[in-house]
Amino acid sequence: MSFMNKPAHLAKRMEDIRTFHVMNILAQAKNMERAGRSIIHMEAGEPDFSTPQPIVEAGKAALMDGKTQYTAATGLPELREAIAQYYQHRYGVEVAPRRIIVTPGASGALILTTAAVIDPGSSLLLADPAYPCNRHFARLFEGSAINVPVCAETNYQLNPELLSQHWRDDSVGALVATPANPTGTLIPQQHLAEMARFCAGRNGVMIVDELYHGLVYGDQPSTTLTMGDNVFVINSFSKYFGMTGWRLGWVVAPSAYVDAIDRLAQNLFLAASTPAQYAALAAFEPATIEILEQRREVFQQRRDFLVPALRELGFEIPVVPQGAFYVYANCEHFTDDSFSFAEKLLEEAGVAITPGIDFGEHQAEKHVRFAYTTSMENLKEGIKRMGKWLA
Amino acid sequence: MSFMNKPAHLAKRMEDIRTFHVMNILAQAKNMERAGRSIIHMEAGEPDFSTPQPIVEAGKAALMDGKTQYTAATGLPELREAIAQYYQHRYGVEVAPRRIIVTPGASGALILTTAAVIDPGSSLLLADPAYPCNRHFARLFEGSAINVPVCAETNYQLNPELLSQHWRDDSVGALVATPANPTGTLIPQQHLAEMARFCAGRNGVMIVDELYHGLVYGDQPSTTLTMGDNVFVINSFSKYFGMTGWRLGWVVAPSAYVDAIDRLAQNLFLAASTPAQYAALAAFEPATIEILEQRREVFQQRRDFLVPALRELGFEIPVVPQGAFYVYANCEHFTDDSFSFAEKLLEEAGVAITPGIDFGEHQAEKHVRFAYTTSMENLKEGIKRMGKWLA
Repeated sequence: MSFMNKPAHLAKRMEDIRTFHVMNILAQAKNMERAGRSIIHMEAGEPDFSTPQPIVEAGKAALMDGKTQYTAATGLPELREAIAQYYQHRYGVEVAPRRIIVTPGASGALILTTAAVIDPGSSLLLADPAYPCNRHFARLFEGSAINVPVCAETNYQLNPELLSQHWRDDSVGALVATPANPTGTLIPQQHLAEMARFCAGRNGVMIVDELYHGLVYGDQPSTTLTMGDNVFVINSFSKYFGMTGWRLGWVVAPSAYVDAIDRLAQNLFLAASTPAQYAALAAFEPATIEILEQRREVFQQRRDFLVPALRELGFEIPVVPQGAFYVYANCEHFTDDSFSFAEKLLEEAGVAITPGIDFGEHQAEKHVRFAYTTSMENLKEGIKRMGKWLA
Repeated sequence: MSFMNKPAHLAKRMEDIRTFHVMNILAQAKNMERAGRSIIHMEAGEPDFSTPQPIVEAGKAALMDGKTQYTAATGLPELREAIAQYYQHRYGVEVAPRRIIVTPGASGALILTTAAVIDPGSSLLLADPAYPCNRHFARLFEGSAINVPVCAETNYQLNPELLSQHWRDDSVGALVATPANPTGTLIPQQHLAEMARFCAGRNGVMIVDELYHGLVYGDQPSTTLTMGDNVFVINSFSKYFGMTGWRLGWVVAPSAYVDAIDRLAQNLFLAASTPAQYAALAAFEPATIEILEQRREVFQQRRDFLVPALRELGFEIPVVPQGAFYVYANCEHFTDDSFSFAEKLLEEAGVAITPGIDFGEHQAEKHVRFAYTTSMENLKEGIKRMGKWLA
C-alpha cells in the first residue's frame, strides 16, 4: 500500500493527455446495471456483432497449428499480400505489399505514422470534432494539434480552403478521417486529392483514416491511396471486419517511409498479434464478406431509423451521416451543457450516450454522439425513454 | 508505383531509431535456407517451445465463447487479479490489482512507462550492453539514454556506484533488467534496493524489467516490486510463459502513476488483445506451471552445455549467465569486428548468432550473443560447425 500520492516524476505531456469522458459514463452505467437497472447502450464505438465465424475458425485453426510465435515486425507476408489484393478487388488499386505494415490495431498504425512525421514543436492539422486520440498522438511526440473548428457547412470535415487557412510554417501535415468519428461524414474525393496536393507542396503528409470505409451507406468511396506520394492510409480489422478485441490494423505507407515505419514497428511493437493475423487471413474470403455486407445493411437500417427519430425528438442533425455507426447530434434545444445532459440522461432515463467534449472543444457542449451499435429493438426503446424524459 | 525516394517529411528522431542488425542476419539465413542450406539458429530471442497446451485451449475456448470484444484499457479484471495472485504465490508480495496494467507485450508496458516519465531533454540511465529498444523508447519521447558502459566486473549490470557516477541533473530515472538480455545476469537485491532509493532521492523512477524472472537457474530472485513507490516492474507472458506471438505483457505501476498509465493506455492501445488475455488466464494454472518448470530445466541443461563448450572453442565468458536464454561471449580471440564475424559464421558455417552491436556500443565489436532457444542436438551441431570453422 502506498502513502505517496504524488508521482516521483511525471512527464509534462501528461497534463494534456486526457481520459475519455465516456469512461465515466461507462463506469456509471455498469454500476447501475449491477444494481439491476436496465441500460440502453448508445455510447459504444464497437459493433454489437461478434467476429464472423470464418475468422474465428481461422483463429482456432492457427492456435491448433501452433501459430503462436512472432511474425516479422511488418506482419505476416500472406496477410500483407491479402490486404494488397483487397485494394485490387475493392478499389481496383494496385499497391505493393511491402508498403502495407500490419499493426496492433489502427492505434498502432497511428502511433507509427505520427512518430515518423511529428517533430517537437511541429503541428498536425485535425478537424474539431474528431477521434480524440489523434490530438494526443501529436502531443505524445511533442508536436501539437491544430484543431480546426468544422461545422455542418463543410460536413464537419476539413476541406482545401480550411487547410490552407490554418496551415502554419511548422505544420507537417493533416490527419483526416472518412467516414469520420463522431460525425459519420465523408470527404469528397476531389477535396482529398486537393488537400493531398496542398500538403505535398509544403513537404507535408496527408494521413487518411479509412477505418470505417467498409461501413458506408450509399455510393462507395474510393481509397485515398492513389492521391500522392505523401499519403498514409490507415485501416483496421476492427470495425467493418468485426475484430475489435483482436487488435489488428494496418497502414499503407508511401514507399519512401516504409523503412522508417519498419524500424519503428520493430522497436515499439516487435509485431502484431500472431493468432489475430492468421485469423484475419479469413477476413477477405467471400463467405466473410457476405456476412459483413449483411451487417452493413443492418447498420444502414438502424441509421435510417435513428436519424429521423432523433430529429423528431428535437435533436438537430443537419448532415445525414453517410457511414460509420454514429450520429452526431446538436442538443442545444435541450441544454448548453451536453456533458451534464448525458449524465442525467443515463441516471434518469437509463440511456448511455457520449458527450461532445470527447471529440474536441468546438461547440462540444452543444453536441452528443449516438452510436447505433445496438439492436433495432434497443434503439427503439432508447428513443422511447428519451421521448418520455425530454417531454 | 512511386518515383519519389525522399519522404515528404521525416521526423528527426528517425535518424536515431535503428533497425536490429540481426534482422539482416535473419534475412540472409532465410535466403540460405530457401536455397537448401542447413542453418543452426542461435540468434532468436524466442523460445523454440510453442505455447503450453492449457493456454492454447483457453484461447480456443475464449474464441468459441465469442470473447472478441474490447476489454478495459487496463486489461481484463480477472487477469489483473490473477497476476496479483501470482505475485502473492511466487514472491509472497501483495499488490493491488489496480496497479497492474495489461499491455500489448512488454513493449507496450515500456512505451506506457517511458511516455509517462520522459520529458524532452531529460535522460534515462541504461546499461550498455542492454536490450536495444530501451534506448529508442527514450529517444522516441525526445529524451535521451545515458548508456553506461558495464563490464564483467559488475556482472554487466548497473550498480549503485555507477548509477551515482552517471546520474545527471536532467535524469528522470534508470531502466535495468534482471536477468538481462543479452547477458543473462542478475542484479543483487541489495543493489536494486539501493538504486531505487537513490532514484527516489532525486525524484527519479526505477524501471525494472523482470521479463526473464521465470527463467533463472539456481537461487530464485525476489521481485523489485517492494522496493519503493518509484519502482515500475515490467513483465510479460512472452518468454517464461511461452506466449511470444500473442503479444501480452504487463506493468505494475506505483499507485501515483496508475491514472496516467491508464490514460496513455486508452489513447495509445485502447486495450491489449482480448483472446490473448483470456488465454493468459490459464498461464498460472498448476498444469501450465508444471510444463513451464520442465522447460526451465531444459533451458538450464542447454546453458550448462553451451557455456563450457563455447569456452572450449576460445570464447571468453567471464560471468556465467544466471537466467534468460542467452550467452554473451567475448570473441576477441578471433576478431575485432564481431559483426563481420557473425556474417561470415553464417555464410561459411551455417550458424546464425547476434553481433554485439545490437545491444550497444561498449565493446560491441568484441562480443556476440548466443541464444539457446534451439534443441540440444542443434546446439551440439552448432558447436561442431564452429569448432571446424574456427580451427
